[in-house]
Amino acid sequence: MSESSSVLIGRKPVMNYVLACITLFHGGAKEVSVKARGRAISRAVDVVEIVRRRFMPDVKISSIDIGTEQVQSSDRNTPTNISTIEITLTR
Amino acid sequence: MSESSSVLIGRKPVMNYVLACITLFHGGAKEVSVKARGRAISRAVDVVEIVRRRFMPDVKISSIDIGTEQVQSSDRNTPTNISTIEITLTR
Repeated sequence: MSESSSVLIGRKPVMNYVLACITLFHGGAKEVSVKARGRAISRAVDVVEIVRRRFMPDVKISSIDIGTEQVQSSDRNTPTNISTIEITLTR
Repeated sequence: MSESSSVLIGRKPVMNYVLACITLFHGGAKEVSVKARGRAISRAVDVVEIVRRRFMPDVKISSIDIGTEQVQSSDRNTPTNISTIEITLTR
């Protein structure tokens, strides 16, 4: 099983991503990265908080990085900037 | 002038908070904390990214902390958990 895995946060309910993280750790992952862009960033923080406070208190946040990505939208010629977050959890 | 200040992100346009951060730094602050809860977390990341990438490249992120606060809503008896973020910028 992979030692490092990532969960990309989208528009599904928060608990889907919480379950994905827990499943990865239970499958042997030592490190799980929770990644999100734009409006999903607040959901990524919710996911991490629920995983470590409610289900897996032995999981620690090893790093939090924020950044900016350029997205080329189809209806506009100019690229749009979108914020990103990557929260790395270790067990 | 204060050496440490904070900007609490709410529902106003992102640029209002960007301007607040820049004004604090220009007024002499060495450190500015950008704080947000719930859905405003993604806006806090937008504010920080715009401040440091577009306006003040000398500003660095010194820490990012996430957490959970309990909020007592008026229409329910049980407290609700809400995620928080605090991004500390230094010049």
